[in-house]
Amino acid sequence: MAEKFLSERNLKFLLYEVFHADDLCTYPYFEEHSREVFDMVLETALKMGRDLLFPCFQEMDKIPPEFIDGEVKVHPMVGEFLKACGEGGWIGANAPFELEGQQLPILITATCKFIFSAANYSATVYPFLTAGAGHLIESFGSEDLINTYIPKMFSGEWQGTMALTEPQAGSSLSDITTQAEPAGEGYYRIRGQKIFISAGDHNFAENVIHLMLAKIKGAPAGAKGISLFVVPKKRIAEDGELVPNDVNVAGIYHKLGYRGAPITQLSMGENNDCRGYLLGEPHQGLPYMFQMMNEARIDVGMGAAAIASAAYHASLEYARERPQSRSLKAKDPALPQVPIIRHADVKRMLLFQRAMVEGSLALILQCGRYADLKKVAEGAEKERCSLLLDLLTGVAKSYPSEMGILSVSQGLQILGGYGYCDEFPLEQYYRDARIHPIHEGTTGIQGLDLLGRKVIMKDGKAFQLYGEEVRKTIAEATQAEHLRLHAEALEKALAQLETVTSHLKGVAAQGDAELFLADATLYLELFAIVAIAWQWLKQGICIVKGLEGDASQKEKTFYQGKMYALRFYFGYELPKKNGLIERLMNGDGLTVEMSDALFGD
Amino acid sequence: MAEKFLSERNLKFLLYEVFHADDLCTYPYFEEHSREVFDMVLETALKMGRDLLFPCFQEMDKIPPEFIDGEVKVHPMVGEFLKACGEGGWIGANAPFELEGQQLPILITATCKFIFSAANYSATVYPFLTAGAGHLIESFGSEDLINTYIPKMFSGEWQGTMALTEPQAGSSLSDITTQAEPAGEGYYRIRGQKIFISAGDHNFAENVIHLMLAKIKGAPAGAKGISLFVVPKKRIAEDGELVPNDVNVAGIYHKLGYRGAPITQLSMGENNDCRGYLLGEPHQGLPYMFQMMNEARIDVGMGAAAIASAAYHASLEYARERPQSRSLKAKDPALPQVPIIRHADVKRMLLFQRAMVEGSLALILQCGRYADLKKVAEGAEKERCSLLLDLLTGVAKSYPSEMGILSVSQGLQILGGYGYCDEFPLEQYYRDARIHPIHEGTTGIQGLDLLGRKVIMKDGKAFQLYGEEVRKTIAEATQAEHLRLHAEALEKALAQLETVTSHLKGVAAQGDAELFLADATLYLELFAIVAIAWQWLKQGICIVKGLEGDASQKEKTFYQGKMYALRFYFGYELPKKNGLIERLMNGDGLTVEMSDALFGD
Repeated sequence: MAEKFLSERNLKFLLYEVFHADDLCTYPYFEEHSREVFDMVLETALKMGRDLLFPCFQEMDKIPPEFIDGEVKVHPMVGEFLKACGEGGWIGANAPFELEGQQLPILITATCKFIFSAANYSATVYPFLTAGAGHLIESFGSEDLINTYIPKMFSGEWQGTMALTEPQAGSSLSDITTQAEPAGEGYYRIRGQKIFISAGDHNFAENVIHLMLAKIKGAPAGAKGISLFVVPKKRIAEDGELVPNDVNVAGIYHKLGYRGAPITQLSMGENNDCRGYLLGEPHQGLPYMFQMMNEARIDVGMGAAAIASAAYHASLEYARERPQSRSLKAKDPALPQVPIIRHADVKRMLLFQRAMVEGSLALILQCGRYADLKKVAEGAEKERCSLLLDLLTGVAKSYPSEMGILSVSQGLQILGGYGYCDEFPLEQYYRDARIHPIHEGTTGIQGLDLLGRKVIMKDGKAFQLYGEEVRKTIAEATQAEHLRLHAEALEKALAQLETVTSHLKGVAAQGDAELFLADATLYLELFAIVAIAWQWLKQGICIVKGLEGDASQKEKTFYQGKMYALRFYFGYELPKKNGLIERLMNGDGLTVEMSDALFGD
Repeated sequence: MAEKFLSERNLKFLLYEVFHADDLCTYPYFEEHSREVFDMVLETALKMGRDLLFPCFQEMDKIPPEFIDGEVKVHPMVGEFLKACGEGGWIGANAPFELEGQQLPILITATCKFIFSAANYSATVYPFLTAGAGHLIESFGSEDLINTYIPKMFSGEWQGTMALTEPQAGSSLSDITTQAEPAGEGYYRIRGQKIFISAGDHNFAENVIHLMLAKIKGAPAGAKGISLFVVPKKRIAEDGELVPNDVNVAGIYHKLGYRGAPITQLSMGENNDCRGYLLGEPHQGLPYMFQMMNEARIDVGMGAAAIASAAYHASLEYARERPQSRSLKAKDPALPQVPIIRHADVKRMLLFQRAMVEGSLALILQCGRYADLKKVAEGAEKERCSLLLDLLTGVAKSYPSEMGILSVSQGLQILGGYGYCDEFPLEQYYRDARIHPIHEGTTGIQGLDLLGRKVIMKDGKAFQLYGEEVRKTIAEATQAEHLRLHAEALEKALAQLETVTSHLKGVAAQGDAELFLADATLYLELFAIVAIAWQWLKQGICIVKGLEGDASQKEKTFYQGKMYALRFYFGYELPKKNGLIERLMNGDGLTVEMSDALFGD
């Protein structure tokens, strides 16, 4: 078993040197906090990660949830973790004090999620789904709903879920058919089926609170007829007792990875006795749910980066310990073998992992900072951060998810045959990581959303603001001698992205939406490569500062290592844009025009 | 369960239209064969694939080999398959008639291996390892060894293996320590350990014949002291009985995938009673073994392409059946959903899979043709094919292996959440495919071999011949209007590859081997992208011919579909060279100079 799953020093670097978490405490909402508080929170998260989560990481995979007699039985650590999360205030960490929340910045809690996820991704799903569901109730629920559900959810006693997907409605949520019929007594009768519901039920949840999309009888067709309901597994009877609410687990899935969390199929209203409570206004379910989904999307990116971080540290540890072969310059077979970390190709693979992990994490924390400012800033700044967050959410979800697979795969490769065997954790990371491009909106969906909505919304306002943000970083980096070439490379890449964007908007203007969006996934990939380069350059400014100061040798080593990772990104990763640009500028509608029959029989 | 795992029409297209398998019958060695014979052989392989192998593909994963009381128990189908392979002449298919072989071209048997591997990759390992081991004995063994082992191996009764890897010697074979001490009675006493030995033992093998690398006591250090031995699990006593030969199974590995085949740890000579029989000359073990390894490398590429083929067909089937969402042009939610194959992004993913599968298979069969001509042609043509085969073997191993992972991953992605669950076979293909960049020489090793040895060997002769081959295809393709632009693109890519190669040779000339080879893996990637473009253009010439003829509608549909896959490759895949070229022309020694400590603590 590897000993480390993340770099604490890098977390602090990002939080305080790059994203100035302590600055947030100047806003009234966060004024009770300070760097000392944040550090304490991080320290607690690290301790839970190390002592509680990480030791069970492999066991939870080997002993996955079981579905017995209608009950979902999960690993005992889940109960312990939920209790600790409830007691420690983790579930309501971002919620305001008046709801017994901690009122912490998302920047800080996102970092804690990274810690937990790197230690044991599956385990984190339980409390953080509850947190997301709670946040929805908090935002759109009546006082009654808030009072009924929030305390039990924040305490970890009740599990929260997102119940969106149905057998016929996955990527196409407008096609859900779960029905809500007004019962005239403050509730709706719910009938339908949901699939792929993470933590949809388990033996450590006294109750499960599903935030469920359904259509009120007679609602408009499509997305405009979707409403959001609170559908508890057990409802509160008049005598205050919890009674079954006709929400039934039909089964759980056997999955490739991410096996510590049960993914359930649910059936509501088999006995016509499932009650749902409308959240907010009717037919506003999708926009409401998008609040949770956007949080969840960033969490997915975070989970992907976190798994990749753990994989990086496991393969780094192996590379340092495993002797194999000699330097290409010293082929005398009588010399002792050297640790494989001395081979350039192994260092290339490690740097690939590291550049992806630290670049992704930076982009995610950037989003966290925007999310905090969206909440606490005012006027134009609030609007700016809100638009940038909207624009970047899908990128922060997709880049870590897609690259996480490749990153973990390189980690596995470093271990050779051992990477393929379950004595080492890499094969599990490889399986776990594969979920991320799928859940909370596939990469394809994110591409359509980015190019088809976000980049063009408000006449391209968000994209324009983004260009300004990146150019601000470029301008600052240009001042530093060691960053000048990288700044130029990013300037060029950004200009190319803008050219590609204009070109595609030109295609859109011709009115063929399919042609316009045919390569949206590639556009997302290009966008993300540039965005991560931006985040590396941004880190670069702080790296240079760190190297210039009179830091200790240990500190210098840290900054020097980061500089190599930055150089790696600019040398090896950024050039990948070239092929994408060639393709995107020369779209020929190939994938639009090809007919089904031509794929062969 | 998917119904198809490959395209029969495409196999015929490649065999007869592109690679002219029937032409081989003009050579005396193959003169007893004809297209009719080949077709019959293929038909039999397809039948075995469909009826015997494919139905057990998932079960063999779910019920993997068990190690009980020193015995390895595998799925019962293995016994049936080995029997069928023995009876059907599959194990000795390439061997000459005088050894009871079938004397079939490698082009044909490689195609059959593709069929078997697409149906059930794990299962194919058993007979084809025996075939490879048999081929080694046939090539370098004494008459006595041949007579003792070949008949029982070809009949499928005795299992053959490649026993190379040791705990301290994986990529670095020169570090093996298994020892062979001359016993003075025609055999050597073997003592040592081997790990990761595929099919190293199982309950359907009456005996297991290990082709084992070991060092004769007092041999030179390093690779020059390695000899090759036949080390049977049971040796033949003077009375003709099989008696134990002190070869002990120490355990089997629990693997991510490829679980139908047991990978064993072996311990030889625990009781100082393990006898090995020297194959050929002492200290020539590594060159001998490379014969088997080169065959095995192409088999690995084939296995990767085959798994990707099965995954392609599974996701194609799903994409045709799964309704989800509507055309981007027709967003009326009241319209019925369309099968996802109508979405451009899904077609892009399918085309990615297809372009990889059919491009890889073409390159592998190209190698098969070179291997056949190396055997049966004479003079300069023999030499030419031998050099081209040497140059391309690692490429034919690595491109399918690396791209197979991505290809299968896209297939999984097409199924969304279902792709992640074991109700569908994609998650298994995803696990199975991950072995290929590791076994028979990692991708990193192949990169070093290509750039550090093959491209520069004989003063660049092989690389020069390769350029000529590719330009021959370009010249022919330029005649066809629909291929002209693609021919130009390939001409440009080839010229770029040559420029990169010269540039790197310039680095080599400066004497720093580490710097020269630092990005050898990327060089291999670039080389492979160009090689697959070549194979697509070569197919293109035959596609154009097919489209020009007066074929049936069904045939036209086939050729049209292939033309889309060709266009996809040139439009989406070939441009990936651009980023690699930028990197390779600007190597800065980053990965050579970075020290261990800078990777973080």
